[in-house]
Amino acid sequence: MAQVGIVMGSDSDMPVMAKAAEILERLGIGYEMTIISAHREPEEFFAYAKGAEEKGFKVIIAGAGMAAHLPGMCAAIFPMPVIGIPMHTTSLGGRDSLYSIVQMPSGIPVATVAINGGVNAGLLAAKILATSDGTLLGKLKDYSENMKREVQEKDKKLQETGYKKYSK
Amino acid sequence: MAQVGIVMGSDSDMPVMAKAAEILERLGIGYEMTIISAHREPEEFFAYAKGAEEKGFKVIIAGAGMAAHLPGMCAAIFPMPVIGIPMHTTSLGGRDSLYSIVQMPSGIPVATVAINGGVNAGLLAAKILATSDGTLLGKLKDYSENMKREVQEKDKKLQETGYKKYSK
Amino acid sequence: MAQVGIVMGSDSDMPVMAKAAEILERLGIGYEMTIISAHREPEEFFAYAKGAEEKGFKVIIAGAGMAAHLPGMCAAIFPMPVIGIPMHTTSLGGRDSLYSIVQMPSGIPVATVAINGGVNAGLLAAKILATSDGTLLGKLKDYSENMKREVQEKDKKLQETGYKKYSK
Amino acid sequence: MAQVGIVMGSDSDMPVMAKAAEILERLGIGYEMTIISAHREPEEFFAYAKGAEEKGFKVIIAGAGMAAHLPGMCAAIFPMPVIGIPMHTTSLGGRDSLYSIVQMPSGIPVATVAINGGVNAGLLAAKILATSDGTLLGKLKDYSENMKREVQEKDKKLQETGYKKYSK
Amino acid sequence: MAQVGIVMGSDSDMPVMAKAAEILERLGIGYEMTIISAHREPEEFFAYAKGAEEKGFKVIIAGAGMAAHLPGMCAAIFPMPVIGIPMHTTSLGGRDSLYSIVQMPSGIPVATVAINGGVNAGLLAAKILATSDGTLLGKLKDYSENMKREVQEKDKKLQETGYKKYSK
Amino acid sequence: MAQVGIVMGSDSDMPVMAKAAEILERLGIGYEMTIISAHREPEEFFAYAKGAEEKGFKVIIAGAGMAAHLPGMCAAIFPMPVIGIPMHTTSLGGRDSLYSIVQMPSGIPVATVAINGGVNAGLLAAKILATSDGTLLGKLKDYSENMKREVQEKDKKLQETGYKKYSK
Amino acid sequence: MAQVGIVMGSDSDMPVMAKAAEILERLGIGYEMTIISAHREPEEFFAYAKGAEEKGFKVIIAGAGMAAHLPGMCAAIFPMPVIGIPMHTTSLGGRDSLYSIVQMPSGIPVATVAINGGVNAGLLAAKILATSDGTLLGKLKDYSENMKREVQEKDKKLQETGYKKYSK
Amino acid sequence: MAQVGIVMGSDSDMPVMAKAAEILERLGIGYEMTIISAHREPEEFFAYAKGAEEKGFKVIIAGAGMAAHLPGMCAAIFPMPVIGIPMHTTSLGGRDSLYSIVQMPSGIPVATVAINGGVNAGLLAAKILATSDGTLLGKLKDYSENMKREVQEKDKKLQETGYKKYSK
Repeated sequence: MAQVGIVMGSDSDMPVMAKAAEILERLGIGYEMTIISAHREPEEFFAYAKGAEEKGFKVIIAGAGMAAHLPGMCAAIFPMPVIGIPMHTTSLGGRDSLYSIVQMPSGIPVATVAINGGVNAGLLAAKILATSDGTLLGKLKDYSENMKREVQEKDKKLQETGYKKYSK
Repeated sequence: MAQVGIVMGSDSDMPVMAKAAEILERLGIGYEMTIISAHREPEEFFAYAKGAEEKGFKVIIAGAGMAAHLPGMCAAIFPMPVIGIPMHTTSLGGRDSLYSIVQMPSGIPVATVAINGGVNAGLLAAKILATSDGTLLGKLKDYSENMKREVQEKDKKLQETGYKKYSK
Repeated sequence: MAQVGIVMGSDSDMPVMAKAAEILERLGIGYEMTIISAHREPEEFFAYAKGAEEKGFKVIIAGAGMAAHLPGMCAAIFPMPVIGIPMHTTSLGGRDSLYSIVQMPSGIPVATVAINGGVNAGLLAAKILATSDGTLLGKLKDYSENMKREVQEKDKKLQETGYKKYSK
Repeated sequence: MAQVGIVMGSDSDMPVMAKAAEILERLGIGYEMTIISAHREPEEFFAYAKGAEEKGFKVIIAGAGMAAHLPGMCAAIFPMPVIGIPMHTTSLGGRDSLYSIVQMPSGIPVATVAINGGVNAGLLAAKILATSDGTLLGKLKDYSENMKREVQEKDKKLQETGYKKYSK
Repeated sequence: MAQVGIVMGSDSDMPVMAKAAEILERLGIGYEMTIISAHREPEEFFAYAKGAEEKGFKVIIAGAGMAAHLPGMCAAIFPMPVIGIPMHTTSLGGRDSLYSIVQMPSGIPVATVAINGGVNAGLLAAKILATSDGTLLGKLKDYSENMKREVQEKDKKLQETGYKKYSK
Repeated sequence: MAQVGIVMGSDSDMPVMAKAAEILERLGIGYEMTIISAHREPEEFFAYAKGAEEKGFKVIIAGAGMAAHLPGMCAAIFPMPVIGIPMHTTSLGGRDSLYSIVQMPSGIPVATVAINGGVNAGLLAAKILATSDGTLLGKLKDYSENMKREVQEKDKKLQETGYKKYSK
Repeated sequence: MAQVGIVMGSDSDMPVMAKAAEILERLGIGYEMTIISAHREPEEFFAYAKGAEEKGFKVIIAGAGMAAHLPGMCAAIFPMPVIGIPMHTTSLGGRDSLYSIVQMPSGIPVATVAINGGVNAGLLAAKILATSDGTLLGKLKDYSENMKREVQEKDKKLQETGYKKYSK
Repeated sequence: MAQVGIVMGSDSDMPVMAKAAEILERLGIGYEMTIISAHREPEEFFAYAKGAEEKGFKVIIAGAGMAAHLPGMCAAIFPMPVIGIPMHTTSLGGRDSLYSIVQMPSGIPVATVAINGGVNAGLLAAKILATSDGTLLGKLKDYSENMKREVQEKDKKLQETGYKKYSK
């Protein structure tokens, strides 16, 4: 059963949102991915956000760019955590998306991650679920161990080859 | 009958929104002012925005600060012009409000005025109505004449007193 | 007869301004497109802005980049709504254009849309005219329905193919 | 037993962090508040972050200003969610704190709230815990109901007194 | 006879513009100070700018805030140098004024000085006139000598009293 | 004889500085172009700036990027106008260059033009010289006429071909 | 003998520069404090910077605001480390000072500290000298121990009084 | 023996960090380059920073991007100078890295260089070591002489070929 809803307003956000989905899959967390626009289909969006709790969602990951209202409007309706991913934008580099998502007024938090931070959104959703799921917490610790090993292998390679021959 | 809806998400926006109301009154335009929050009462907000056309509104003026979603969500639902006023904010000076209002995605425009631009929001609403109301257009031209005279009087005073004795 | 004037200071703004024109055409609204520079031919510009009302324009859409004075100077002269489109700029991403257009002083509003927001400028002009034109309002509602359907089709495709095979 | 650790690097952050504590108290969530500096006492900080899971913390709320490393370093060590509060700063308005907290690299998310967003940090912690605690979820829904009522009372007052006599 | 026109769109700019006037007086340069608004009285402004050469102006100093169009519009009409002073603004700190003045398109330069830089605008006007006026150039060199002496006296005082007793 | 010194700190600024030189050539103004770095050869720079008046320079055009000190240091030494051109930069888009040039302290103005504004720097130098040179003033008016004609020809082409077939 | 030169261009920078001096005194490091302006007295500045090595300076701490050229020009002349302190500014919050100091071109580094970071400039100078002075290194370690104790005492107080009674 | 530690959190920073290494090599300074992540392997990082003094490091050069905590955390542990290099970032141009590194709180300075300033970080490390190493100081002076000659050769080429034929 899907514990996480992944939602984006436009399919141009797909490459970033896919990263969140990949993390959830890797950690064995059920999710449901939807394209739905708070601006272009407000009633459908409203029904989606209102029905999310009943579907069993514990977390919603919402990505949006520019005047990014999707995460905040999810948070206005869904009573559990909403994670917001600000999309990079051509003109303002994603500052518009970031401010539109993180600067929520008192009472309606959105857990904001970095611009284009799809991986971190997935991990944050997992960490939230891990507060009541020891097995998942164990998987997250393994994930961290893996990250550590990867850095250590890079350093090992650097020590062996030197920086002049090092190629990423 | 109210032709303009003035809406704000928080009564902290009142001093700016009041400027819009004063302009409409001065020009004899009916309006209705409401405090309604897209974040704190999404269903009530939804009903408000959906019902606005039936009430006879031709324009909505929406003010909001920080991650300002109210104007954009009005524009997602109400089919005629929505004017957005970005509120000044302590930390980011209103850049957050401005980007959240002006950077709307393709398909859902918000007519954005300056940060804290209550007067201009009122005037813009009037100009919109004046596209089909010659009497109102005349009043707007008088308003412009008045502004001109005020500047000219200030200059006259400057020429008479000199800048050293000039007090605003 | 042209109800909307579309004006730009430089033909480098054409790709963005063309989007506004396309929307107006699609909605059956008469418009007249002009290249005229407030900086390079101030007298011609002045005559243009002064004559706009007589020509029957109800709205002017003005696009400009960098220290973008064209929309504000139109608004200083033309008594009905002026819509400003800030152009993207290489060095400042369009922040210069945006601030030069949206931060108008009290008394002379410019209805500002997003950076490079040609489509939204066209739609906003249509919404303004629709305040007194029921047929046009109906067309705008159809346009919104179409946008909704497009998002729904994208979601349907996503549900069928999954995100891994989804290609925009 | 404390489920939430509230941590700040300097007692100048207390007024903001206190807001988070007040929310947790109001919702009946156990917490432990600590002043500990990742910069000034890195070993003590390290021990704190490493010991947090064993103490029973499910969430850490970390506030910091300027080059704000405390939330990110907590997230590097503690395996469950870390909520970061960027503090307002005199020179850069809190942009420095915000970027130092939200722009975390892939693999180590910090759930970032608004600048000075103490209330929202407390609410977000509660929402996280509510993913596995139905009673708490009920309290959060009551909290939302209360917010709604407060806005509605303000609007009622506005309708009764008019905006000219309205005093916040 | 006035060689320099000092022009501002609003008397709120007076304290900054007065600094420019004081410098010109101190250096014995004739000037004429005017309040005239490109936005509120475009025709009057136009006449002013067109007539400036005939009046004998060699330089115009124009100050403006927010979407600051006055300096650029002067530069579009007056064929000799226009110096622009961006005014500090509450919300954007004067960035809006600065970008609106300095980012002029190719062909119409505005010689921009610092935000609120009234003194430097006056000095720059004097330096421009000094390119063909040896006596004025001498006065400018004396002015620089004076500035040097002032700094040296401050340092002397610091060496005598030490920084602990130094009061500005 | 050279009336204008064009100076840059690095030959990477050449494409922008060349634009200034081209304008001066076109208007028949003598200039001397030099690569000299205030940072890498401070003594040579110092000698250059001190000797500029004696060489007959009336204006210096200085271009620089990043922490751009060259224009300001010229202005500290050369008693007549210094025009500063902020170079576009990869990371900050030229904001660093702009602030380092325009925000000069009281007493030492730099006449700042737009980021990468080589053409405008050349024109501004010409306008400065034209304050005492009627022939040059005439050439500048012709230059403006030409600009006007170019815009008018573009508009004519647009009216003939329509925007769909218009190619820049 | 003075090992550190502390230099500022204006006595308005004194409160920040005094913090650097206090740290040096506390750590027993000889210093010499000077007011000297690269802009207002370039020759005197030049002589100062050229003579600094001979005087025995090992480090220069230079503070400046706005278009802050003093640190970079010191670094162009003095061959050992120059520490730059960007001053807070009213309009741009110190971003102008920061960019003018930190964005030095390749070849001429300035060791930049935080906006208004007088204490850190003093400590950085001490750390530089401590690379060849074991006694000083010991004092710096004591300083760090002290900072740690101060934070620990604040936490102790918090644990005793609770946050509601905690007063800074 | 290595006097300088060069450390980066990710091998994507290698091209910039390599510039620092090249400078140290050219000046004959021993260094050790390591990939170690404060976020992904906090314990290993901690051990590295704690052991740096014993290894004989006098300076650490730390590069990091986005929410860049590596330099500041080094400075929290290592008692001698830490030089921070902010990496360019796609979305925010390196402002996030810069603020996360330069805006360190009082007590823990990081000597910050320009965005992507690898060369300057290497030179600054050398200058620090040169405060107690006359031979190295001599090499640094030669390096400066070389930079001067390079600029002079460029200028010579410009004078010979003219700007039209000048190719970088």
